[in-house]
Parts: sequence; C-alpha cells; structure tokens
Amino acid sequence: MAKEITSREEDYSQWYNDIIKKAGLADNSPVRGCMVIKPYGFAIWENMRDQLDKMFKDTGHVNAYFPLFIPKSFLSKEAEHVEGFAKECAVVTHHRLMNNPDGPGVVVDPSAKLEEELIVRPTSETIIWDTYRKWIKSYRDLPLLINQWANVVRWELRTRPFLRTTEFLWQEGHTAHTTQAEAIAESRLIHDIYAEFAEKYMAMPVIQGSKSENERFAGAVETYTIEALMQDGKALQAGTSHFLGQNFAKAFDVKYSNDKNEEEYVWATSWGVSTRLVGGLIMTHSDDEGLVLPPLLAPIQVIIIPIPKPLPELMEKLDAIEKLLKDVGVKVKVDRDEKKRPGFKFAEYEMKGVPIRLGVGPRDLANNQVEVARRDTKEKTTVSLDNIEVYIQNLLVEIQENLLAKAKKHREENFTVTDSYDMFKEILETKGGFISAHWDGTSETEQRIKEETKATIRCIPLEASEENGVCIYSGKPSTGRVIFAKAY
Amino acid sequence: MAKEITSREEDYSQWYNDIIKKAGLADNSPVRGCMVIKPYGFAIWENMRDQLDKMFKDTGHVNAYFPLFIPKSFLSKEAEHVEGFAKECAVVTHHRLMNNPDGPGVVVDPSAKLEEELIVRPTSETIIWDTYRKWIKSYRDLPLLINQWANVVRWELRTRPFLRTTEFLWQEGHTAHTTQAEAIAESRLIHDIYAEFAEKYMAMPVIQGSKSENERFAGAVETYTIEALMQDGKALQAGTSHFLGQNFAKAFDVKYSNDKNEEEYVWATSWGVSTRLVGGLIMTHSDDEGLVLPPLLAPIQVIIIPIPKPLPELMEKLDAIEKLLKDVGVKVKVDRDEKKRPGFKFAEYEMKGVPIRLGVGPRDLANNQVEVARRDTKEKTTVSLDNIEVYIQNLLVEIQENLLAKAKKHREENFTVTDSYDMFKEILETKGGFISAHWDGTSETEQRIKEETKATIRCIPLEASEENGVCIYSGKPSTGRVIFAKAY
Repeated sequence: MAKEITSREEDYSQWYNDIIKKAGLADNSPVRGCMVIKPYGFAIWENMRDQLDKMFKDTGHVNAYFPLFIPKSFLSKEAEHVEGFAKECAVVTHHRLMNNPDGPGVVVDPSAKLEEELIVRPTSETIIWDTYRKWIKSYRDLPLLINQWANVVRWELRTRPFLRTTEFLWQEGHTAHTTQAEAIAESRLIHDIYAEFAEKYMAMPVIQGSKSENERFAGAVETYTIEALMQDGKALQAGTSHFLGQNFAKAFDVKYSNDKNEEEYVWATSWGVSTRLVGGLIMTHSDDEGLVLPPLLAPIQVIIIPIPKPLPELMEKLDAIEKLLKDVGVKVKVDRDEKKRPGFKFAEYEMKGVPIRLGVGPRDLANNQVEVARRDTKEKTTVSLDNIEVYIQNLLVEIQENLLAKAKKHREENFTVTDSYDMFKEILETKGGFISAHWDGTSETEQRIKEETKATIRCIPLEASEENGVCIYSGKPSTGRVIFAKAY
Repeated sequence: MAKEITSREEDYSQWYNDIIKKAGLADNSPVRGCMVIKPYGFAIWENMRDQLDKMFKDTGHVNAYFPLFIPKSFLSKEAEHVEGFAKECAVVTHHRLMNNPDGPGVVVDPSAKLEEELIVRPTSETIIWDTYRKWIKSYRDLPLLINQWANVVRWELRTRPFLRTTEFLWQEGHTAHTTQAEAIAESRLIHDIYAEFAEKYMAMPVIQGSKSENERFAGAVETYTIEALMQDGKALQAGTSHFLGQNFAKAFDVKYSNDKNEEEYVWATSWGVSTRLVGGLIMTHSDDEGLVLPPLLAPIQVIIIPIPKPLPELMEKLDAIEKLLKDVGVKVKVDRDEKKRPGFKFAEYEMKGVPIRLGVGPRDLANNQVEVARRDTKEKTTVSLDNIEVYIQNLLVEIQENLLAKAKKHREENFTVTDSYDMFKEILETKGGFISAHWDGTSETEQRIKEETKATIRCIPLEASEENGVCIYSGKPSTGRVIFAKAY
C-alpha cells in the first residue's frame, strides 16, 4: 500500500496529493476547484474546529450566522476591499431553472433574472458591517464579539486540496469595539490563540508577525499572521487576524454614542483560519509512508489490531483494553474486520497516521503484554498490560511533544540569517526555508525581490529586537529584520 | 419589555415574529428571504446540532463535506427529483466582477461566463451520488453512512424566519446499502432518532408516519416524517427520512459487486432536519411573555440575578453558587451588569425563555435561601441554599417533563377523530389541529380536499391499527385512518 506513495524526495507535490488520496482525506469533485472532504479528513477538521471554538468561547466570543449571499453593491462600499480581492467570485444572476424547451434537461429561466446580482461570500465583512449598523447604537452594545463557521467561495485560478480551493470551510470572527486600543488588543488576542493552537494542538511551530503593506488584507490597517514552514522549505500562511481600524465602520456608517452621548465610528477586527490548516498539518509531519497525525487532533489515537484474526477469546480481552482506554478519554478503535490480514491493517493505519498501534495475539496475552508501535518514530516496544492505560496516555503526550520538537528542529535548520543578497538567492534556490534579512520598508523593494526570487515577506516578526542594518536589496537603512520565504 | 409582544390571541403570526425579534433569535437581512441568525438563536441551533450529531455518530454515521455547487446537468439526471423541487434555486452564471467602465462600483464581467451554470445546492443527492459512483465498488465498501452539516438554498416565494428561508442550515444524511431491507431499516432508524430528539430534547411530541405519494420527497420511494402540532392548530413537518430505492443509484450508475461477484445497483436513503426546528421549538412552548425553552436545549438554564445590584459581598456568594451549579453540569450565568435594574433583567430573561431564575439579595443570603422562579409555570418558591445544586438539577428535569406534558395535552385536545366531512371542515375552520379520518388512498381525493379546505395529509401513521371504513370525501372503501391538518 505504502509503495503507492511518491516519495517527498522524488516529487513533493505529488507526495502531498498521494497522501490525501491514500489516507482518504479528500477527493476531487466534478466542480472546478472544489473538493469533497472525506469522512477521515473531515474528522480532523472537526477536531480542529471544536478546539478552536472552545478557545474562542473561553475568551468571550459567540457564534452567529450571516447569509451566504452578498448584494453586489455591498462589495463596492469599501474601496480597498473590492480592489484587493473581491473580484474573482461566484455570481448568482438567476433564481430559477426550467425544462429545456428545445430538448431534454433543464436550462436557466431567462425570466428569472435577479434585479441585483448576488455574490457568494468570499468573506463576510461587508454584509456583517451592514448588519452591525442596525445592532450598534450605544457604547452599551459594545464590544460585539462574534464568530461564524461557514463556507466561502473564491474563484481561484490554481487550486490544491485543502491549501487553496474554490470553496473552503473556515471561521471568520468579526468584532466591534469602542476604542482603537481595544480593537488592536482583540486582534492580538486572536493572533495569540491561533499561534497557541498551531503549536499546542497541531504541533506546528509558527512565527508570529505583522504583514507588510503589500501582503495585508484588503481593507485592513494591520494584519497579524502566523507563518509555518513546510517540509519542502516553503512557508504557509496559516491564520490571519486583522485590525480594520474604522474602515468598514465608515464604509457602512456604523456609529455608536459614547458615554458623553457623542457619536463615534466603531473600531473593528476580523480574523480567520480555514481548512487550509489540514493541508499545513499534512505537510508538517507526514512522511513517505503516509500521514502522521499529532495525538491531540487524531480522529483515532490508538488502533488495536488482533493477530492473526479476531478470535472470540482474543476479542474479549481486546474489548476490555478498549474500554480501559476509552474510560480515560483515549480515542481508541479495535479493528474487528475479519476479511483483512494484520499486515494489510498495519499498512492502512500507518497510511492514516494513527499515532499508536497495539498489535495483540494470544501469546502476548498469555505473557500479559502487547506490542506498542509508534507512528512518529516507528519504534516498537513490548509493554506489560498492567496499567497499560497510563502508559498509553503518557506515550500520547510524548508523541505530541516529539512531533513539535521535530518540526521545530526542521524550522531551525531551515532558518537563515543573512546580509548578502547573493546568499539570499542561493538559499532560495537550494534549501529554501525562512530567511531573516534587512529590508528598507518600501513596497517597491519588496516587489522587486518577489519578481527576482519569488520570495515574499512572510512577516515582520513581533519579537524582533531592534537592529540597525542596511536593506539586503537596496542598501538603504533598515531598523530591523523581516522574514522572507517562498510561500504556498 | 414584554408589553411589546403581540398576544397569540390577537395575531399568532405577529406574536411569532415579535418573539424572534425581542428574544434576539434572528434578524432580517438585506438578501431577500435570508435571515441573520443572532448569537442567542444560533446557540439554540448549536445545542440541537450537537445532540443530533451525537445520536448520528452513536449509530455509526460519520460526517463529510460535499461541494456547495452542483453542475446544472446533474439536476436533470433523476427525472422526478428535478420535476419535484429543483427548479427554484440560485444559479451561478459568472465567476468575476470588474470595475464598472461607465461609473462607480462593480459589474459582472461578461467575459467570465461559466461554460455550464452551477446551482447552489437545494439538497445534495445528485452531487453525492455522482461521488458515490467512484467510492463504491464492492459490497465491502457498504454500507456508507455519511452525514453533512451544511447550508442549502431554495428560492422560496414566501419566507418566514426559521420556518422557511431562502438559505437555511441543516444536516443531510446520505446512505448507501447492499439490500432494500437494510436501506429501509436505516431510514426507519433515523426516523426514530428524529422522533426521539423531538420528544426528549425539544419536548415536542410528534406523530410518526409515512407521506402520501403527493407529499413524498421527489425521487423517494417512501418518505417518513415526524409531524408536530403548533399552538395555533397548524402542523409542522419537522424532519423527514427517505427510502430512495435504487432511483439515484440508477440515475448515477452506482453499482457494487456482491459476494458472488455480480453487479447490482445500490440502495439508498437520505434524511434531514433543519433550522426549521428552531421555529418549531418557539411555537411549541412560548407564551405571551416571550420565549420558553426546554432545559435540555437552553443556552442558559439558570440565570442568577443579584438584588438590588452586584455588591461585592453578594457577588462572592453568587460566584460560589455559580461554581456549584457549573460543577454538576448546569449551564448557569450570573448577570453582573451594574447598569440595569433587577426588574429589567427579570423581563429580559423571561423574554429569552431561561428556564430558571434565581433572584438573590443580602437578606436571602442571611436566611441561607434564594428565590427560585420557573419560566414555564411562573411559580416562585423560596428554597434553602443547602444542596441547592440538587434542587436545581431536579427542577430542570421537572421543567423538561412539564413542557412535554403540556405540549402533549395540547395535542390531545386538538386531535379529532371524525367520519363526517362537514365536521372535518368545521374543525379546520375553527380550532384546527390534527384530524384522523378515512381516505380512499387516491391522489385525486387528497388534492380535492386540499383545494377545498387547505388541509393536507400530514402522514399515514405508523402505529395505526387496521380499521375498515369509508373515505370521508369520496365514500369509497378505506383500510385505515390518516392524519390531516393545515400545515406550515
């Protein structure tokens, strides 16, 4: 089974597609650029969603739901917003089909043309701020801390499963505040939640920083981003949190009366992560044998396989082990399939990235032990059944930590600090990775570097210390390093 | 606050709209027929969704996600399906906007016309069965028990918040089986889950039955339905589960090879409930003072209000009570707002249907007691703080049971068995409700009764005993009674 995967060495892009197919994460669909998220892939997304949802709610956010459709005129209201990205989108022009008068099938009913076209939301700032105008009257109505889990559509030219699809699933938070300081604090709070989620749950280390003007969300004053490094040395923008200033409040005329009864425009943030995270998860940990999942997001943490097959006496004992593990909160499954052989099952769960495999035969039981195999290191150990649930719980923690440590090591090995543009170019052509370099702060320089090397400024790191230097490209003065990389 | 609600007596429809507005459940949107689900309304839907999701997963179902868009040609493949309801839908014809060359704003880019129009899913049978063709090869791939939580769009002429909206949220299950018997059993299993959910969690009694041919889902062989009775005597179809036979398998050529290696068409079911349930919940329990929620679906089960205001010593004690209740799993909130008076808060939570209100002042605490007010009966009792958490847990169970009992009583009082068409008509014109009557089994009779009285056959009850009689309309022989009502 594993042989059907292309190695990363041979073709990284094909390896990624092979994993998605062989691990049963997603499938192509008959609709251009849209994927079908298969049950196993969706279970990973559900785990991500549930954890993020908890983190949002724990910090005072609530969920709501806004319409899928946005009247075309709304998109014109915030000028930068529409310039920036709202052009490539799905446009609804009619509301009825009719039987084809000239043959079989159905055709669009020309008499059912909409007066104003509707856009399938590419993001919801416009329709939400149009609604907030009605909801916000006084400072007592603020802050408004709302999130929605939704599907959005952007008509992308080149698509890749999870990383960039025409339709994708995401959450989008949209908050409203009385002061600039509070809105900035909110965008930073969410930015930190995203970073915590990436590191703690996805075991995916990220660099936290703000975007340069070129890379900022259209309509934002500041965009905070978490940037992760994939195994092929390319960066992945994994989640962005925007301080929107009063741009949308002004475009949609959203004012509140303050405690002195004066009218003021509201301050805003928006923030989102999407099913793209599943792509990032795959590319951070997986290997040439298939998917590797961190325990905290794995739909199945422990798979128990009876050897050589599910005989009744054996199954009785395995059911007991399953119950033992379930009772302490481990996501465990016993493979009861009688038609497949253990070897086939081993390969299958390896491909699916299940963190721990227990292989158990009658002789193991006679010796009161099981064979424990780790997916991350491929180590096998024979372990006593006494307190097996404690052993497994500890091992899950260890695997989670090991995956983060490995990913951190990979990032460190692929993080270069340089003051030479020649070296900058050479690194990008060879190993890639993050490059920390001085930049003169102009969009012009950024644009030229991008044209010459395909590298973009991933972020201006938040933790950077002030350091005077000269721009790697222009030689002009710089007060701090920024992070460059080629990116997905 | 409560005065702003129209009474049910005066105008039931306006009462419903008032509750939605005043309890903060939903709002109109600028998109025709689409609503904004506000945080409080969405929290009720989340509770419904989480419980149903658990029930589906406990019976072996998994979630997945299929594209929002369906190629137009797919809708023509199952003839009855497209005839039945796939006509009024949102049609995507273009994929780009451009700056208006003749003025401000954006217009549809005429050069970005799609080769084949895309339909925003009104339901997903077609795209899912097109996908299942790729997934199903052998009997080993079956059964396939997949559900998705999604938004769908049907271009309805007349819309009402929750009950019928252009876009709505729902779950749609789509299963595939080797045998007819297994598929029928699946559709019945889900039908029973829907009934259990309605009665146990929504405290909304339902009649279980199958639909007549006229009312069946387009493309189904059999449709099972749960039918609830609203307070105005109209029925609400609350959830349907369809046995689809081999109709979609044949339309999309989905075959499996059986254990004798012979090819056979797959048997199918589909089933769904939607945000319409929130409308049903409102109309089952609420009164002229506002929303009434069953504890098992209430976002807040217990509200604690400090009297006269949140003084520090008082709050310390209330925090302790809150913790006590939280620790036993009660959804409790302490209202810490210092600007609003207790009277205002009482009215607010009454409007929002919070099942239990604790009003606590310093004197209550001195006496080691609190005032407990029930939303359902409006009874107030003074209760000792000793073991208050046990008292509250029991009271929540009692309220849940009382709401179901009340709703059952209302249904019994509005359930008429008759053999006289005159009486049938009179009841429909006066009190309404369910009417059990003999019917000759023809679509023609059903259609005529509908034209004359606006009543439809809600279902042929599953539990009906065989009983020979004559059709209330045609006088022709009948072998059992069916349930008529006017419906939403």
